[in-house]
Amino acid sequence: MGASMDAKEILEIYRKVGGRVETKGKVTLTSKEDFAVYYTPGVGKVSMHLSEHPEDARELSIKGNSVAVVSDGTAVLGLGDIGPYGALPVMEGKALIFKQLAGIDAWPLVLDTKDPEEIIRIVKAVAPNFGGINLEDIAAPQCFEIEQRLIEELDIPVMHDDQHGTAIVTLAGLINASKVVGKDLNTMTAVVNGVGAAGVAIMRLLKRAYPGLTLRAVDSKGIVSSTRTDINGMKQTILAEGTIAGDRDGDLSAALSGADIFIGVSKAHILSQEMVRMMNAGPIVFAMANPVPEIMPEDAKAAGVAVMATGRSDFPNQINNALVFPGVFRGALDGKVRKITDDMKVRAAQAIAALVENPTTEFIVPDILDERVVPAVATAIQS
Amino acid sequence: MGASMDAKEILEIYRKVGGRVETKGKVTLTSKEDFAVYYTPGVGKVSMHLSEHPEDARELSIKGNSVAVVSDGTAVLGLGDIGPYGALPVMEGKALIFKQLAGIDAWPLVLDTKDPEEIIRIVKAVAPNFGGINLEDIAAPQCFEIEQRLIEELDIPVMHDDQHGTAIVTLAGLINASKVVGKDLNTMTAVVNGVGAAGVAIMRLLKRAYPGLTLRAVDSKGIVSSTRTDINGMKQTILAEGTIAGDRDGDLSAALSGADIFIGVSKAHILSQEMVRMMNAGPIVFAMANPVPEIMPEDAKAAGVAVMATGRSDFPNQINNALVFPGVFRGALDGKVRKITDDMKVRAAQAIAALVENPTTEFIVPDILDERVVPAVATAIQS
Repeated sequence: MGASMDAKEILEIYRKVGGRVETKGKVTLTSKEDFAVYYTPGVGKVSMHLSEHPEDARELSIKGNSVAVVSDGTAVLGLGDIGPYGALPVMEGKALIFKQLAGIDAWPLVLDTKDPEEIIRIVKAVAPNFGGINLEDIAAPQCFEIEQRLIEELDIPVMHDDQHGTAIVTLAGLINASKVVGKDLNTMTAVVNGVGAAGVAIMRLLKRAYPGLTLRAVDSKGIVSSTRTDINGMKQTILAEGTIAGDRDGDLSAALSGADIFIGVSKAHILSQEMVRMMNAGPIVFAMANPVPEIMPEDAKAAGVAVMATGRSDFPNQINNALVFPGVFRGALDGKVRKITDDMKVRAAQAIAALVENPTTEFIVPDILDERVVPAVATAIQS
Repeated sequence: MGASMDAKEILEIYRKVGGRVETKGKVTLTSKEDFAVYYTPGVGKVSMHLSEHPEDARELSIKGNSVAVVSDGTAVLGLGDIGPYGALPVMEGKALIFKQLAGIDAWPLVLDTKDPEEIIRIVKAVAPNFGGINLEDIAAPQCFEIEQRLIEELDIPVMHDDQHGTAIVTLAGLINASKVVGKDLNTMTAVVNGVGAAGVAIMRLLKRAYPGLTLRAVDSKGIVSSTRTDINGMKQTILAEGTIAGDRDGDLSAALSGADIFIGVSKAHILSQEMVRMMNAGPIVFAMANPVPEIMPEDAKAAGVAVMATGRSDFPNQINNALVFPGVFRGALDGKVRKITDDMKVRAAQAIAALVENPTTEFIVPDILDERVVPAVATAIQS
């Protein structure tokens, strides 16, 4: 339905709803006495207390259960830099999911600026209202610095979902896909096509979980290697730190020759059946470009792919961040976790994977609406 | 109850509620199809549309019904500069009132900065998410510039409630108080004690509505007059523009001699019975300092006051901004009003006053929970 609707039909539905989230009072004011307790003068006593004990804001205010969904609109879905108004519907959708799946009070905060320093200042300034910051759809390379600085400078958890949500759910899917093909991720080779926010985070998390996994990164100019002279800061970093091998030159075909896994966070139709046939037996293909994947599932299967996943809801094996972010922040809020560590991310991926008892070609990750997901991820974040 | 509770009792109530507002989804996601419509890929079509037609955000997103309640925590209630965490409970209380009384989705945004330029930049950057900006508890004189600049630079309504909410409800109360004493505001003299955000806005709005009203402003050093050399920018402005007479020197007593009205936005117990007795027959006293008024109602009455109002819920005639801000923003959102003009403010005050058909000494403004208030104010803003 939703995937096949045209813009007019979708806009009509949104127009009828008119904002997919709203606020709701948790108390009802029915008398002047209620006003005196929940507003002035009663609230003054809470204000005085919090001015002296800001650490109690989590239990005395919205801060304890709220998350800001922040975007500058520079990398919205697969649509690119479409600005704050373009980003707003996506952030609102995340707020809807946060509430329904994890009971979290999330509020959209799209920002009418692209200046990383200003974004950092704004998020720091609004941080007192929130128990966590979900960064979203911010383009690389700015997203790396913005996230890193906020993690260092704030005392609440900050996660750029396009990086780490994607990395966690990808790792979860690969854990089960490797079981389906009967191989050990520590001896496999994976090619990641697309070296932006998602690609870098995926590679780093995979390497953290499986140090023996060989990784090749491919950007629009070919394999990222030490012989390239045109690569930017983050690509140099993942080479230098040993996340990617960088021992081979060439194009995507050259990278895939002898590889076990293709991970696409790039663009439509970039993976051909011919390329798939160059991979090792039992190829795993995660074609996550949205809305059109790097290769369509029917073409991938015809070329011999053993496990196929996309980002879409209308195919099996949807690699969707909604399996991750609600539980991550639920766990962080409940456990008063200040930083989401790499170990927590690996545990979250393992927890998601473990919910699928018998992985098969068409069933490697749980359904988004599986009610066990959020508690499992939240527990992983807190343990 | 609320007025007499001690801090421990109030904190216990707030701890149990744990945030007085929450979010609520307006649609429920029950299938992958729902995700495809209300999240990806469906939402991408709305994003594309809004990136090209941001003016449609009001009808396609939360923007159409949402207000940010923004404070830097520099002038919270009568507590002063107690910072963002001190301010948060008040903003949250306003969000609660916004929803219950006017159906508006308001979200608190306390800011961890006091720099006016930075506050202006932040509010401008987050403006795409909201259909209106309620500034709150920002100290004078910064509040004047922050509000003015935001009104000029944004295309959504911006109102500093401490200024204009207070001014509107004060004017409403005075319209009916003058009926009770049988005098014409255009021939009366009012003394305003306190020349901060509220005092200045009150005087300007009173003068706008009743050009014949004589106004005297008193600050901590006495009557603001042209012979004073120690007065700041805004005090000079209201002198120069003729809002206040400035033709008399001296202290509060000197100002009150021969006056008809006392309006206090200052501090506890500053008005003595002796001063009241210097006023003209049938004195009107609005002692709005919180939580302890400039004179207690029983003392005022003993000194001959004809109409007595305070900011408190436990005395008659509560001059409370909650009579104003929900309806102002309801009207502004419904009418797509970009600027709240002075004429709208006067009409809003008249509409509130008109809801009391037969004003008496103890009944000059409607009850906060009177359901006619918000529609009446909203209509006044739109007409």
